Amino acid sequence: MFFASDNGAPIPAKIMEAMTAANQGYAISYGNDPATARLQDQIRQVFEAPMAEVLFLTVGTAANALALSLLTPPWGTVFCHQHAHIAEDECGAPEFYTGGARLSLVNGASGKIDPAALGDAIAATGHSVHNFQRGCLSVTNVTEAGTVYSVAEIEALAAIARGANLPVHLDGARLANALAATGASPADMTWRAGVDVLSLGGTKNGLLAAEAVVLFDAEKSAELGLRRKRGGHLNSKLRYVAAQFSAWFDEDYWLTLATQANAMAARLAKGLEAVPGARINHPTEANIVFAQLPLAAHQRAQQAGAQYYGHDTAGNCRLVCSWSTTEADVDGLLSAFRG
Amino acid sequence: MFFASDNGAPIPAKIMEAMTAANQGYAISYGNDPATARLQDQIRQVFEAPMAEVLFLTVGTAANALALSLLTPPWGTVFCHQHAHIAEDECGAPEFYTGGARLSLVNGASGKIDPAALGDAIAATGHSVHNFQRGCLSVTNVTEAGTVYSVAEIEALAAIARGANLPVHLDGARLANALAATGASPADMTWRAGVDVLSLGGTKNGLLAAEAVVLFDAEKSAELGLRRKRGGHLNSKLRYVAAQFSAWFDEDYWLTLATQANAMAARLAKGLEAVPGARINHPTEANIVFAQLPLAAHQRAQQAGAQYYGHDTAGNCRLVCSWSTTEADVDGLLSAFRG
Amino acid sequence: MFFASDNGAPIPAKIMEAMTAANQGYAISYGNDPATARLQDQIRQVFEAPMAEVLFLTVGTAANALALSLLTPPWGTVFCHQHAHIAEDECGAPEFYTGGARLSLVNGASGKIDPAALGDAIAATGHSVHNFQRGCLSVTNVTEAGTVYSVAEIEALAAIARGANLPVHLDGARLANALAATGASPADMTWRAGVDVLSLGGTKNGLLAAEAVVLFDAEKSAELGLRRKRGGHLNSKLRYVAAQFSAWFDEDYWLTLATQANAMAARLAKGLEAVPGARINHPTEANIVFAQLPLAAHQRAQQAGAQYYGHDTAGNCRLVCSWSTTEADVDGLLSAFRG
Amino acid sequence: MFFASDNGAPIPAKIMEAMTAANQGYAISYGNDPATARLQDQIRQVFEAPMAEVLFLTVGTAANALALSLLTPPWGTVFCHQHAHIAEDECGAPEFYTGGARLSLVNGASGKIDPAALGDAIAATGHSVHNFQRGCLSVTNVTEAGTVYSVAEIEALAAIARGANLPVHLDGARLANALAATGASPADMTWRAGVDVLSLGGTKNGLLAAEAVVLFDAEKSAELGLRRKRGGHLNSKLRYVAAQFSAWFDEDYWLTLATQANAMAARLAKGLEAVPGARINHPTEANIVFAQLPLAAHQRAQQAGAQYYGHDTAGNCRLVCSWSTTEADVDGLLSAFRG
Repeated sequence: MFFASDNGAPIPAKIMEAMTAANQGYAISYGNDPATARLQDQIRQVFEAPMAEVLFLTVGTAANALALSLLTPPWGTVFCHQHAHIAEDECGAPEFYTGGARLSLVNGASGKIDPAALGDAIAATGHSVHNFQRGCLSVTNVTEAGTVYSVAEIEALAAIARGANLPVHLDGARLANALAATGASPADMTWRAGVDVLSLGGTKNGLLAAEAVVLFDAEKSAELGLRRKRGGHLNSKLRYVAAQFSAWFDEDYWLTLATQANAMAARLAKGLEAVPGARINHPTEANIVFAQLPLAAHQRAQQAGAQYYGHDTAGNCRLVCSWSTTEADVDGLLSAFRG
Repeated sequence: MFFASDNGAPIPAKIMEAMTAANQGYAISYGNDPATARLQDQIRQVFEAPMAEVLFLTVGTAANALALSLLTPPWGTVFCHQHAHIAEDECGAPEFYTGGARLSLVNGASGKIDPAALGDAIAATGHSVHNFQRGCLSVTNVTEAGTVYSVAEIEALAAIARGANLPVHLDGARLANALAATGASPADMTWRAGVDVLSLGGTKNGLLAAEAVVLFDAEKSAELGLRRKRGGHLNSKLRYVAAQFSAWFDEDYWLTLATQANAMAARLAKGLEAVPGARINHPTEANIVFAQLPLAAHQRAQQAGAQYYGHDTAGNCRLVCSWSTTEADVDGLLSAFRG
Repeated sequence: MFFASDNGAPIPAKIMEAMTAANQGYAISYGNDPATARLQDQIRQVFEAPMAEVLFLTVGTAANALALSLLTPPWGTVFCHQHAHIAEDECGAPEFYTGGARLSLVNGASGKIDPAALGDAIAATGHSVHNFQRGCLSVTNVTEAGTVYSVAEIEALAAIARGANLPVHLDGARLANALAATGASPADMTWRAGVDVLSLGGTKNGLLAAEAVVLFDAEKSAELGLRRKRGGHLNSKLRYVAAQFSAWFDEDYWLTLATQANAMAARLAKGLEAVPGARINHPTEANIVFAQLPLAAHQRAQQAGAQYYGHDTAGNCRLVCSWSTTEADVDGLLSAFRG
Repeated sequence: MFFASDNGAPIPAKIMEAMTAANQGYAISYGNDPATARLQDQIRQVFEAPMAEVLFLTVGTAANALALSLLTPPWGTVFCHQHAHIAEDECGAPEFYTGGARLSLVNGASGKIDPAALGDAIAATGHSVHNFQRGCLSVTNVTEAGTVYSVAEIEALAAIARGANLPVHLDGARLANALAATGASPADMTWRAGVDVLSLGGTKNGLLAAEAVVLFDAEKSAELGLRRKRGGHLNSKLRYVAAQFSAWFDEDYWLTLATQANAMAARLAKGLEAVPGARINHPTEANIVFAQLPLAAHQRAQQAGAQYYGHDTAGNCRLVCSWSTTEADVDGLLSAFRG
């Protein structure tokens, strides 16, 4: 009963096998191997974006920070949700990689940027030499509150950004879960909705350590290559990252994994309705449940061996499902909660 | 016949199996898992350094740059060999992580810092507010020229640094090869010789992606933890890095791997003596051979399918052996060279 | 009728004369001249702080950013008022000099940090490696809203910071005006109230270009010296800065100048009571009046040649008095406003 | 007998008077005053560059660092002389402002970059993602060795840079002295010779504190404006900088001042020929004499009250003349040297 994070789950056998299969003979390092080239093409097809450039690394925080460094100068403002991962969970990596850009925190219920608030924040940003300048918009899907933007919602935010001439970043650490939740195509959720640069995360959805920055406009790919190396994020043995990602995209396995995680969260949310005193804090739209439970329920769950974060004095907690969460896990947790 | 780099080799079966074995059930992420804690202790034992703190990541360039950022302020000078990896192959990662420190390039034959030149360089560094200040010393073992510092040589350089109150960094991307070559103990080659911070590389010696920063003085470990996260180098699933490293240290497997790579380089260097027109450019002391060969010899080798870098117009080249290089590989290359 | 800014005023004759008097013969540059040394002592006496170290420069934004760079690491948070000068008017200089620290914006009426909000903001800052760490507190007196903290109010904020182990910066771009307004001594308003580092501004109160960073704890003065040089803020001919500051402190001339500016603002605020439709937006406690006036009143003032900023569509404006503002200027403006 | 530095001299009366004359009434701050606008036009005329944009500040180190930050990315290399001011006397300001660019130090006799060495250095810079990339060329005229590049020499270096697609910076901290020495026009020495950005120094040639960055291609002027503010180098009362510079350019007063300084250095160098044991270390082409003298000669000069830097154990010293150096000063120093 592990609900602490989706990155605490094991790696699916299919992914481990793909890495083992890739472990044959020699391969040129630093991404100049044929498997990495094939993966590039595979991702272009998945995203229906033949001109995209994709660079690989292994940590999502780095993918976000590098992406932002392409879209805003050191004196630019990154508009993002006040609880975005880049704002709360990256120890200033965006500031580090951009050379000191500032996050402009925008409100919005359940992790989603409120369009009107975004418009206001942009409008409030000055233009004189004394002010931070407007930099870019960063949207996260799935949000940190476990909610999911529809394609139309992303389009609406991107249109506001475009209206102010700002490029758009999508933090897709859980993009697979968002796609599984909405049924949207990767292209519709990203570049067709106005996204310029995507941080594409595999690690939270079954991969060992595999992330990518997808540039739908390839113009800055050389700069990104230098920034990645300079940041120490050019792994030498990228064939194993390629192996992970390729197996993940094959036959939509990424969506299969995400669908399972989402389904388990839905089952959990549904089950919580029957737990006395339980309350859902945000709509459960992907693989994360935010709930408030009586302290006694938490105590019982922990005694039963359940692991999860965020149980504060008011009983609020975060319960994350992964590809490997089973119905038995969920039902066991619910049973412990119910007592 | 792959001699392009030691990071182009496959992963030993023992390492892959260790990762597969680690892939059971759930584990708390970000290094808070029991396997990472056990590995910490294992490394303390290997280095006879019970107070050391070890932080893990997956790229050697990052390990170096983070280590340097602990040892020099933005206005400090890093004394290093003019052909050090940090000087020539990291696209400015040291400058990026230190916030703008400067490398002071010191001469020395075959990749080794000349002690007198180091003393001169330190002495030439000013003390006034107009000057860059003295920061730290960075030594690399195995050097970029494939030579190996003895323990006494490292001690001598470290003593010069100490005399000027400078801390000492050791870039140990190929430390295993240096230990295998000299028979020195890990402790003697590092902290007992005056090294404060070690970049310990596993990736060039058989691991998929596993590097560490070893702080022999633990005082700055909290700062390093923040810098690692801020740089985007805190991998979530560190249990797999722990699995790699633990299997590598078990029964001195790291030295077994390095010994094989070194032996193959020695065999290659020896064999080159019998190649007409061949010349060894640097003493072959670890797993890399620098040689000059007739252009026709290169042509024959390439036609035979050999892969390696650095064949310039004068016929100079770099030939790297790895744990997986076989006698047949070496003999095949020599045969092609001989024609 | 110039009310645009206090830095638009001319330099008092006494200051110009001091500079001319200093313009005799040669002087060692970069602050190693006797006049700069004497000024150091003079400031120590003025602030009753014999151990203080003072470094001089010419721009207040640089003084603030350099001060903050001493008090917070790149991964630290600067707690400040949401409308602080460092937040709104310095184009990211704090981020640049700190290497990417983040401002945590705290609310509070009329430019003053609300103590409870400060406590909440500090408490909300996480401690894990994923979070920005707590850095320092920055308070501004006179505030950007023209209000003045009492000594007790600064003490209260500093005590909250101390309770969380945070050092305290005071942006004293208009410290003279705050002292003149409250009658507090320089020592009481600064180090006795818990301030560690002071940005002391002369330029907004009559000097040509003279600012200082006062370190009440001298420990970091060498670092500040290097940071100042590295930032390009070590002026060579500091004897002229010393001349300005010395004449300014002589016989409390700085307070004389500030008292005049404050008095003119008080006269203006008082006079606005008699302007139909006028409203004071913030208490007028120093030399700046924030007021709302009918658009027709603004039109008349501008036709009469008055200069000032911030006349928005609702008629809000900022009216700044300086040492050279006269009663006639004030009465002329009021007359124009009244129509 | 002050020969320590040209920035230890007093300010010419004409410059002080210009500042006093500018001290009338109010002026909009931050360079939006009419005097600054007029000065912009004056400089465009002086340099025959109607499209140039000029930004003002008060410290030469900042002018250099800001200029370089426009011409090279953080991962770029600045090619400069090994003893350039940016390399030896700015405590890493170029690294700070560029965000971590690297200086590539090029040899050359008496402070001048050797064209062949420059070509070699550029050619040796790699192109792969592992290497620092080529950034820009920075030339200094007058050099740190007191020598002067002819227009043809600057053209030759700039042509080499152009051939590698690198922009060119000229550190003109003593440009007036170089112009006075060569008789070249400002345009010929700068943009017509291939210079893109000029750091124009006034402070070493009579001004209190006045420097400029001249962009011959105005494209990056908005970025420079933001970088200047962000660096804390936007002085509020720029009308006084404008007053200094305008009086300096009026009737070629800058060249008058520089001519006097150069003439005194020539007189000093000539006189040293008659000092027993004296040796000139670099050709005396502007206002600085580098000489070696017997230690006894130094002793006598110091006893006679002479002030200058750089008297090392071998008797080498630097003797700087300024606009205010008189024949009597020079002759007095020579007399003391002769004993």
